[in-house]
Amino acid sequence: MSKLAIPDAIREAMKDVKHKVVVLSGKGGVGKTTVATNLAISFAKDKHAAGIIDADIYGPNVPKLLGLDGQHPTSDGEKLDPVLGPLGMKIMSMGFLLRQSDDAVAWRGPIVAKAITQFLGDVRWGELDLLVVDLPPGTGDEILSILQSIPDIDGVVIVSTPQEVAVLDARRAIRLVQKMGVPILGIVENMAEFICPSCGNSHRLYGEGSTKQAAEDFGIDHLGSLPFDPSIIQLSDKGTPFVVENPDSASAVAFGEIVKKLAKKMGLKD
Amino acid sequence: MSKLAIPDAIREAMKDVKHKVVVLSGKGGVGKTTVATNLAISFAKDKHAAGIIDADIYGPNVPKLLGLDGQHPTSDGEKLDPVLGPLGMKIMSMGFLLRQSDDAVAWRGPIVAKAITQFLGDVRWGELDLLVVDLPPGTGDEILSILQSIPDIDGVVIVSTPQEVAVLDARRAIRLVQKMGVPILGIVENMAEFICPSCGNSHRLYGEGSTKQAAEDFGIDHLGSLPFDPSIIQLSDKGTPFVVENPDSASAVAFGEIVKKLAKKMGLKD
Repeated sequence: MSKLAIPDAIREAMKDVKHKVVVLSGKGGVGKTTVATNLAISFAKDKHAAGIIDADIYGPNVPKLLGLDGQHPTSDGEKLDPVLGPLGMKIMSMGFLLRQSDDAVAWRGPIVAKAITQFLGDVRWGELDLLVVDLPPGTGDEILSILQSIPDIDGVVIVSTPQEVAVLDARRAIRLVQKMGVPILGIVENMAEFICPSCGNSHRLYGEGSTKQAAEDFGIDHLGSLPFDPSIIQLSDKGTPFVVENPDSASAVAFGEIVKKLAKKMGLKD
Repeated sequence: MSKLAIPDAIREAMKDVKHKVVVLSGKGGVGKTTVATNLAISFAKDKHAAGIIDADIYGPNVPKLLGLDGQHPTSDGEKLDPVLGPLGMKIMSMGFLLRQSDDAVAWRGPIVAKAITQFLGDVRWGELDLLVVDLPPGTGDEILSILQSIPDIDGVVIVSTPQEVAVLDARRAIRLVQKMGVPILGIVENMAEFICPSCGNSHRLYGEGSTKQAAEDFGIDHLGSLPFDPSIIQLSDKGTPFVVENPDSASAVAFGEIVKKLAKKMGLKD
């Protein structure tokens, strides 16, 4: 695997960004974007200057999750200014650049690589404590390109459900990232347990596949486990991050523990 | 969008395949591979000669779902013979060609395109009534390449959960497929309703986003709705298709209705 040079424009655009975290999953539909978005907003709540790059060019859903659908970055003709989201977060998403939400992005490989590089280099991020990058799911070409294009990544956070095929795909992703020499901050288990709101009984909807075993096998940290919480999905559909709307919920408390561990690992004051 | 010529090798390899169905989702994690696998096996149960191409090169999970992990296609040095699965199904998956299940597939775009073309042209399918193609999730480059490489597709089946961002991604996929002039057989709503096994109450885990509205907006058929059934996930993890293992379950009955509609649309005797 050859190491590509990081473009100067990207180094320049990110020179005042203190910490960068990349959120990645092997499989789609495991809550990667929800984790990425709520991670950034958790730090923003703690008075850190935070930003999000929604690099999921095939399904850029960060604007939808933050209630920013239909917004557009402003430009001075040279650089783009990110859209301002809740708590002053700076948000950049391919979703802002598409004409309408039904638009299919079906670009050929070289155009994709170019779009991502532009994306990363053309945005005026300014000073940030933390930039969270939401990658497309999978272990494809774009992942390589994006991971190789970002200077000085603090580390990657892997998200997986307990479904065995999801853990299998997470293992592929971990191996890929380790091969590239990019540090991994840990793995988050998502959608683990569903507490029936009618009777209070607990059900493991996605089975018993073990993110803990994967963490052990690859020598990475298991950051924590989040329940399957339909209110998170409903709040996401409404454009409201759950850590803001339901800060006392079991989900938000579990998420807070994960954020604390990450802050400590990155040397960010909590 | 330029129309690529279909390679002769692929036309030749598929010349005795009567019907081809492509299963696609805009978002990952919506059950696309489960639908594709159980679709093929439903037709196989009805004495049709069926096959599956697992073209999800980034997370090829069909072998896992059919209990075929670790199998390998045989070769005469020229063509590959598909692996024989349950009910005599012919299965080909990138998963068979990877050294171990943790292997990350991180190929550059041109290699991916070449791998897929080889994949489609190098397999000796022989006579089949139906070949089901499981595409990678999303609306990326590989989708274009694969859809354009398969001759005489009967149509595409779109899979989505009711989560609004999943329906949004499904809309993108529908628009892309329609732009390419490939027929769409319809959309399947998956993971709609969860019946708590402890108390029997019903919960819409993924919310109320409307696959029916999407079907109406794009003028395609709504093929049916499948419940969120944890036993499907457990059976998948064990390598057993749910339509074989639990043929009388609510899920299998609902799936049977979808299969009937598809058989009628394709002119396949039920």
